[in-house]
Amino acid sequence: MKIDVLTLFPKMFEGPMNESILGKAKQRELVEVNVHNFRDFSDNKHQQVDDYPYGGGAGMLLKVQPIDDALAHINEQSPETKKRVILLDPAGIPFNQKVAEEFSEEEHLVFICGHYEGYDERIRSLVTDEVSLGDYVLTGGELGAMVMIDATVRLLPEVLGNDESAVTDSHSTGLLEHPHYTRPADYKGMRVPEVLTNGNHKLIDEWRLKESLRRTYLRRPEMLEKLDMSAQMIKMLEQIKQEENA
Amino acid sequence: MKIDVLTLFPKMFEGPMNESILGKAKQRELVEVNVHNFRDFSDNKHQQVDDYPYGGGAGMLLKVQPIDDALAHINEQSPETKKRVILLDPAGIPFNQKVAEEFSEEEHLVFICGHYEGYDERIRSLVTDEVSLGDYVLTGGELGAMVMIDATVRLLPEVLGNDESAVTDSHSTGLLEHPHYTRPADYKGMRVPEVLTNGNHKLIDEWRLKESLRRTYLRRPEMLEKLDMSAQMIKMLEQIKQEENA
Repeated sequence: MKIDVLTLFPKMFEGPMNESILGKAKQRELVEVNVHNFRDFSDNKHQQVDDYPYGGGAGMLLKVQPIDDALAHINEQSPETKKRVILLDPAGIPFNQKVAEEFSEEEHLVFICGHYEGYDERIRSLVTDEVSLGDYVLTGGELGAMVMIDATVRLLPEVLGNDESAVTDSHSTGLLEHPHYTRPADYKGMRVPEVLTNGNHKLIDEWRLKESLRRTYLRRPEMLEKLDMSAQMIKMLEQIKQEENA
Repeated sequence: MKIDVLTLFPKMFEGPMNESILGKAKQRELVEVNVHNFRDFSDNKHQQVDDYPYGGGAGMLLKVQPIDDALAHINEQSPETKKRVILLDPAGIPFNQKVAEEFSEEEHLVFICGHYEGYDERIRSLVTDEVSLGDYVLTGGELGAMVMIDATVRLLPEVLGNDESAVTDSHSTGLLEHPHYTRPADYKGMRVPEVLTNGNHKLIDEWRLKESLRRTYLRRPEMLEKLDMSAQMIKMLEQIKQEENA
């Protein structure tokens, strides 16, 4: 997979893009990430990339020209790839695991990171997607792009090792994860539940499923509405409701 | 504000924490950020911080001891502050602008970033909050912590300049932002709407409010349900519905 990022703060990407699983994926050439400063594409002699809004108001807007020309440069560099061009914007569709899965099937992703008050509206006509990281305000699109890259790259074939399986994570099963415990069995009086230590795998599986359901019921009940539940799960959920309301 | 971060990948924070608005806020001593590698607090001679799960299963879990001792160290360094200790976890409550506002009123935030399959359940007993960045899976909590720090710090007094006003952003007014335009008035045939260029501020304000409503109606209709609308807004929304369904 090829990834290009357009930003005014390329240094922000140095740490996050070179560590952990993403760093390893780059070393193993499973993904190629190029970060461009779109200020370099300004046709203005002062390399200006922003300007005042028509109609007045606070804040500066990103101009369309530097981004248009930066995208043209990426097209010249990689004329053959099919590109998904993603604008990071609070007014975009909310990013979620389904969007990450969709992105992970693409050949070439281009992320445009805004800063300042916002984009000149005509920038939207240059992109295929407008995506928001969540319902909160950030100082720029950079961290959002890094999050989307991380969530996408870990879904690529061969990126995760066996010890980092993507299958059982929260938000891929539709349930929050059950509690996990590792050694020691007793930490300052806090003990591991007995069922996990006596080796009956049928009971362990049942306990885990029930505690996944319980955590989802208590914290994110709206997630249960979207779930296709087995008869066993429906019965467990009834028990949980009785236990929690007792 | 004081911020401490516990992570196994401190280098990830180097770029993002030193650039843009957050970098400036640190330079101006409006915020102090300390990033700790909690591997340094392992009591194991191999500095092991993870171990196999009780009851079997794929993946490694973070042990409770290194994190417990790292938190004790932060308490020793800052015995006087009231701390909010935040565990980054997909099973936590979803982060949003309201949570950012709450965090921005605190004296001292401590973020715990997980990696690998998950946490030993007993780590949850050491924290005040469990927060999720969104409904997607990341390779670790680091990017989530950076996003929450960014969203929080920009709300602190004096952090944003006048040109970067926090007041009119999407997700603080309850509406998505209206389209913005800056120079040139004509870019490759794409023109700025006339209303924005003829200086009638009453018409400009009306156009902006209506286009905010339109964008929210088209992209995030559920946001309108939570909104306390004026008579003017209700009338505009009726017009928009007619225009869009025409």
